[in-house]
Amino acid sequence: MKSTVRIALGLEYDGTDFVGWQSQRDCRSVQELVTEAVIAVADHPLTVAGSGRTDAGVHASQQVAHFDTQANRQARQWLLGINSNLPPDIAVQWVKEVAPDFDARRSAMWRRYRYQIQQRLVRSALSRRGVWWLRDPLDCSLMTAAAAAWVGENDFSAFRAAGCQSSTPMRRLLAVEIEENNSIIALDFTANAFLQHMVRNFVGVLVAIGSGREPPEWAAQVLASRDRTQGGVAAPPQGLTLLEVAYPKRFEIPTAPDSWLN
Amino acid sequence: MKSTVRIALGLEYDGTDFVGWQSQRDCRSVQELVTEAVIAVADHPLTVAGSGRTDAGVHASQQVAHFDTQANRQARQWLLGINSNLPPDIAVQWVKEVAPDFDARRSAMWRRYRYQIQQRLVRSALSRRGVWWLRDPLDCSLMTAAAAAWVGENDFSAFRAAGCQSSTPMRRLLAVEIEENNSIIALDFTANAFLQHMVRNFVGVLVAIGSGREPPEWAAQVLASRDRTQGGVAAPPQGLTLLEVAYPKRFEIPTAPDSWLN
Repeated sequence: MKSTVRIALGLEYDGTDFVGWQSQRDCRSVQELVTEAVIAVADHPLTVAGSGRTDAGVHASQQVAHFDTQANRQARQWLLGINSNLPPDIAVQWVKEVAPDFDARRSAMWRRYRYQIQQRLVRSALSRRGVWWLRDPLDCSLMTAAAAAWVGENDFSAFRAAGCQSSTPMRRLLAVEIEENNSIIALDFTANAFLQHMVRNFVGVLVAIGSGREPPEWAAQVLASRDRTQGGVAAPPQGLTLLEVAYPKRFEIPTAPDSWLN
Repeated sequence: MKSTVRIALGLEYDGTDFVGWQSQRDCRSVQELVTEAVIAVADHPLTVAGSGRTDAGVHASQQVAHFDTQANRQARQWLLGINSNLPPDIAVQWVKEVAPDFDARRSAMWRRYRYQIQQRLVRSALSRRGVWWLRDPLDCSLMTAAAAAWVGENDFSAFRAAGCQSSTPMRRLLAVEIEENNSIIALDFTANAFLQHMVRNFVGVLVAIGSGREPPEWAAQVLASRDRTQGGVAAPPQGLTLLEVAYPKRFEIPTAPDSWLN
């Protein structure tokens, strides 16, 4: 009788042409294409489970997933075999046999997302797929001050999409870090987990504050309202990238490069 | 009677889905789409002339072009009007009225191209449109030493495409600068002008040297042969970006941001 092993993978994808992570009938999802590619190598049916969903148009420099298999392959065979069965906009970065109790979603301690805003008078043709282009100047120190009000264990109902399927609106936001580098503003959000559209709704509120349309105190007011209609417009998906999913050290999950050109 | 003015433009484009700069019948060229967009704003027939051709799949963070017009518009009207008539993969960065003797091609003192190699065990989904992915390690100091043999006024016949239409194979190569930043190796070539495929042929030879398949002296031998068949395989187009075209100071031509995410 063949023994079953659990394999973890690190996935990079350009979300532009996907309906998101989650498999949906007759749609181009990351999960479905990765599952098909793994099946082609394993040569038996299986399901690939991710650390969480990413929405349509959202990218990942490190999404973590796992699957169970009876196939006996070396890590390098999995890596090269799966990649050769994937389209150019998805690439497995590493493959690793893990302890049987590892679960890409349930074992995760925290996730980090990066939202990239490009602040220029005119739009860019080269970076358009990975940024939200804004013409108006933004004050990063106002945005940093405002976002501090969200850090901690909070009811984030005001930043939650209407269709969000989570059983609770409570999340622990660990950090918000905002850095400016030439025309790019990178906003990094770290939390135990995220509600649907949470980062994009955060960014919508921060842009209203950074541009001076709302005062910094508005960030705390929106949170306290617990009412999605009090917030701003969600930022568009192409600026968002899942950067990292962190696990307890004993699982020895590799970390990944963190940007569009590194 | 209306007076004619000469207007210069700075253009950024993602070359992935173009047959190159030059207009060709029934093909999607940058020149044709820019010309159509300018005509839509000028409201009379005209031709947009570039600093030089870029090949199919080659990008630009700053291509410079010019046109003549009898239309009376502010720089901002040209800028916003032309951009609103262009597809997302082309964007005008600036528009400026210039002296009537300015010519985007003939006035240029030098051009700078960047070739980006990404050196990783596995391919990247996020940066795939702007890099040549190579799995093997490259020694940048070997490549830098080898490329020094090319600097100066030389007959570059060995690095010239068969179809190159230039009347002379002589070019003055001013500098080759190679920098490594995480997994990206950026090779910058500055010359008075370039022959067709010259940079891609340079990179093909340097990669053979950097990977140890050929000794550093081979760079000088290929140059001295003046024979295209002595060189390596041309590097693929997606790694190449026209970064800058420099003009005499009196024309006051703006410089542009220089990378995919700035």
